[in-house]
Amino acid sequence: MATVPKPLDRLIQELVRLPGIGEKTAMRLAFHMLRAERREVEALAAAMLAMRDEMTTCSLCCALSASDPCEICGDSQRSGEIVCVVEDTADQLAVERSGSFRGRYHVLQGALAPLDGVGPEDLRVRELLARLTDGAVKEVLVATNPTAEGEATALYLARLIKPLGVRVTRIAHGLPMGADMEYVDTATLGRALEGRRDM
Amino acid sequence: MATVPKPLDRLIQELVRLPGIGEKTAMRLAFHMLRAERREVEALAAAMLAMRDEMTTCSLCCALSASDPCEICGDSQRSGEIVCVVEDTADQLAVERSGSFRGRYHVLQGALAPLDGVGPEDLRVRELLARLTDGAVKEVLVATNPTAEGEATALYLARLIKPLGVRVTRIAHGLPMGADMEYVDTATLGRALEGRRDM
Repeated sequence: MATVPKPLDRLIQELVRLPGIGEKTAMRLAFHMLRAERREVEALAAAMLAMRDEMTTCSLCCALSASDPCEICGDSQRSGEIVCVVEDTADQLAVERSGSFRGRYHVLQGALAPLDGVGPEDLRVRELLARLTDGAVKEVLVATNPTAEGEATALYLARLIKPLGVRVTRIAHGLPMGADMEYVDTATLGRALEGRRDM
Repeated sequence: MATVPKPLDRLIQELVRLPGIGEKTAMRLAFHMLRAERREVEALAAAMLAMRDEMTTCSLCCALSASDPCEICGDSQRSGEIVCVVEDTADQLAVERSGSFRGRYHVLQGALAPLDGVGPEDLRVRELLARLTDGAVKEVLVATNPTAEGEATALYLARLIKPLGVRVTRIAHGLPMGADMEYVDTATLGRALEGRRDM
């Protein structure tokens, strides 16, 4: 039985390392790249490397950004009184897309996960505390994920920040918009009932 | 609202051109590449370009291959009496993986699609006929896809090749192994009944 030609196989092996890409998808992608115009493949390879070269970390909020300070930290129009703490830059972009937040961010670059050996010293916690010393920040809105790690991180930060006299809030949990009550999981439903509001 | 940093966005735009990759998947892949080690991203970029440089077309069977003649055409152990005609190299590899075929291949590099302007002159039909002149090939097994285009191509080839005194066969259609009769589409069921065999 003849095997997949080496150069093709090498590409497939590299592609399956990507998250959510299985053997079949890798094969489809590799064949697409084989049939596509050469400059299309070159453009993708170049974009991958350029992205690695051009992205840096904002020294203020620790977000991955094309500039330092990042676009948001450098924007004087945004309120410096409220800082939204997220786990990573993807979460920050998600909050930005919602269009509902006009303050600044702080990217922890992870969440507490003692079982995986991720402690507070592995996160950008020290950098966050340093931003709270001059009294300009009035509120820290913790928007870590509603997972065990994210919740633990939120509790840890609240315990650390409250004594500094800064208000600490947590992003709300409840029914996602458009959800069907019947299919919402019990944990979410529990949180939604608990977090009910007057109307 | 701050936008996705430029270098990241450029990569996402390149990734969404790939088949089956939507905006969300592209974003996940881009963030993975951002967090992965630099040499991992470099290895993927290099594999993409190397694949384009090192792959060539076999001048005998027209398959995409790392060598010319390809591994299969150069293998004297394989029967030259039967040639399996497929639409593209991915289909050839699928037949190889089945381990049930020990002859040679011919890759058409497409299927007839008059509506998309793909005629016989766009396929490697001339190269196939050239292989049938010396009488060494006794059978042509047409394994184009069971689609409108693949079926039309199969009929076209049969009409062309039969007069040369070469046996022309079509890969069997019927129930896929492990299928549930109840959920098999009517066209497949029809073909399966029509193609029944004595047992």
